[in-house]
Amino acid sequence: MKIGIDISGGDFAPQATVGGAILAQKELSPDIQFCLFGDEQVITSYLKEAGTFPSNFEIIHAPEVIGMGDHPSKILSQKPNSSIALGFEMLKQNKIDAFASAGNTGAMLVGSIYSIGIIPGIIRPCITALIPKENGSVGILLDVGINPDCKADQLYQFGLVGSLYAKYVFNNPNPKVGLLNIGEEEEKGSLLTQAAYKLMKNTSDFNFTGNVENRDIFKNNVDVIVCDGFTGNIVLKHTEAMYRLFAKQGFHNDFLDLFNYENYGGTPVLGANATIIIGHGISNEKAVKNMILHTKGVHEAGLYKKISTAMELFAQKKSGE
Amino acid sequence: MKIGIDISGGDFAPQATVGGAILAQKELSPDIQFCLFGDEQVITSYLKEAGTFPSNFEIIHAPEVIGMGDHPSKILSQKPNSSIALGFEMLKQNKIDAFASAGNTGAMLVGSIYSIGIIPGIIRPCITALIPKENGSVGILLDVGINPDCKADQLYQFGLVGSLYAKYVFNNPNPKVGLLNIGEEEEKGSLLTQAAYKLMKNTSDFNFTGNVENRDIFKNNVDVIVCDGFTGNIVLKHTEAMYRLFAKQGFHNDFLDLFNYENYGGTPVLGANATIIIGHGISNEKAVKNMILHTKGVHEAGLYKKISTAMELFAQKKSGE
Repeated sequence: MKIGIDISGGDFAPQATVGGAILAQKELSPDIQFCLFGDEQVITSYLKEAGTFPSNFEIIHAPEVIGMGDHPSKILSQKPNSSIALGFEMLKQNKIDAFASAGNTGAMLVGSIYSIGIIPGIIRPCITALIPKENGSVGILLDVGINPDCKADQLYQFGLVGSLYAKYVFNNPNPKVGLLNIGEEEEKGSLLTQAAYKLMKNTSDFNFTGNVENRDIFKNNVDVIVCDGFTGNIVLKHTEAMYRLFAKQGFHNDFLDLFNYENYGGTPVLGANATIIIGHGISNEKAVKNMILHTKGVHEAGLYKKISTAMELFAQKKSGE
Repeated sequence: MKIGIDISGGDFAPQATVGGAILAQKELSPDIQFCLFGDEQVITSYLKEAGTFPSNFEIIHAPEVIGMGDHPSKILSQKPNSSIALGFEMLKQNKIDAFASAGNTGAMLVGSIYSIGIIPGIIRPCITALIPKENGSVGILLDVGINPDCKADQLYQFGLVGSLYAKYVFNNPNPKVGLLNIGEEEEKGSLLTQAAYKLMKNTSDFNFTGNVENRDIFKNNVDVIVCDGFTGNIVLKHTEAMYRLFAKQGFHNDFLDLFNYENYGGTPVLGANATIIIGHGISNEKAVKNMILHTKGVHEAGLYKKISTAMELFAQKKSGE
């Protein structure tokens, strides 16, 4: 397996990205190849400084940099020699098996959709966040930001793809899928959640367990939590904000540490037709390392292929109805 | 001032409600009269048990009870001798000046709208939650649940009434109003927040300071945080859930205690044409006491009259445009 890594992406690049790649390589078996996209000279000097042989890594010289503030829509064509543009180009040509970046999320999404393409049947890709649970495991929250306005059929798809992510990457044989809502009963919530509940309640495509309120997402009642991207992003940012607030008060223990984003390696672009991972913009070395380990895990699980197969079955079932 | 208090409402009624009324009476000056709505015999026996003279309180016998699970739409006419129905009846007849309940929120809302009526120009009433800030003050979040589906003009009104609440009840002369969003820039967010931003950005009706992300709601950047009721309820419940999660880990200090709902006395029904306060359903004695103190503060501030005047000015300005 050859993993492509965007060295120029993220608030602490290239130091954190090169450092994370070195850490990941130490943990992974030698048959995992690393392909680093970024300024060759800069990468080489950081690798040497860290006492690592540059020859351990394939380096693709990408002199252009896409900033976190760059508007994503045309940036890949405007900067064809950027790490993200070249990464997608090589992924498209199957010269790498997976591509991971902690850089501009919008640009990563544009690359996923227009360079790689989305799986037939998927309305729009989505991204996830991991929410720690009281029992030490994690729940999957989706979408967390790229679909601020959703229709009910999109929430339904989030339930489906989130369930596959939980099953194949987190080895949960029968993940419980909950609809994030402001009440437990079917008739509670917004027009969107009411409509989504109706679509989900008798589904056999995933294990829908009903509405879930925020107090229950930290419990074991639910493994996959579905919501529109606006709500999901609010929940994600609120969780991070409260974690930082409490950590700042000097509170620390193993449980609280579960809320530290560094422990999680980012999210696959669920619905894209390849293994594409987006890391947290503020990723440090440890977070980049975990992003790379997660990329390996997601690719080994064949997640995008599983989603593709599920969408084919879904289409067949629909046409047979 | 005569404050009406629903003794039958809330998960821990009547013990917590009678107890809270006794605590509040001890703190307030003797010219504040208390009118307790509930089962007379039960109230009298609780008051005697607590060593308090029942004659210190006016008691309105209300033998019927509206449960937390009762469907609110017709319950006031179905149970005319319930504490909530009688409370609204006496408020309507000006026999009490304000009415407070920790009971069924839906029934309180139905009473506010159909028994009392909403202020002309108000699209729909809304309710608030107080969010602690790092500097020890509180921010006002609204709506937090009764308007899960909003249009942009509703969010605009939340900015206006939230601002008046901050100004007259929390003595903040120029409250900063932020639009809760998933990005800081104008074009970020959902169709709703984008449209609301456009309405707010040049307003002179309140001090709009732009989009606010969750990480900033605990800071001093913003005093009033506006969002649709679905999002607000999610944020409120998530805040409570994370507070409980961390408190359960044994973390405690003065700052964390600011997140304890007991310290806050509930919310006015903003937009109703009288002083109506809804307390937290799980209110204990201390929370009920604070609900009553808050009721006094909101009524003394003349909040609903200030909102009424502001809506008249708003209508005049609109018709002059």
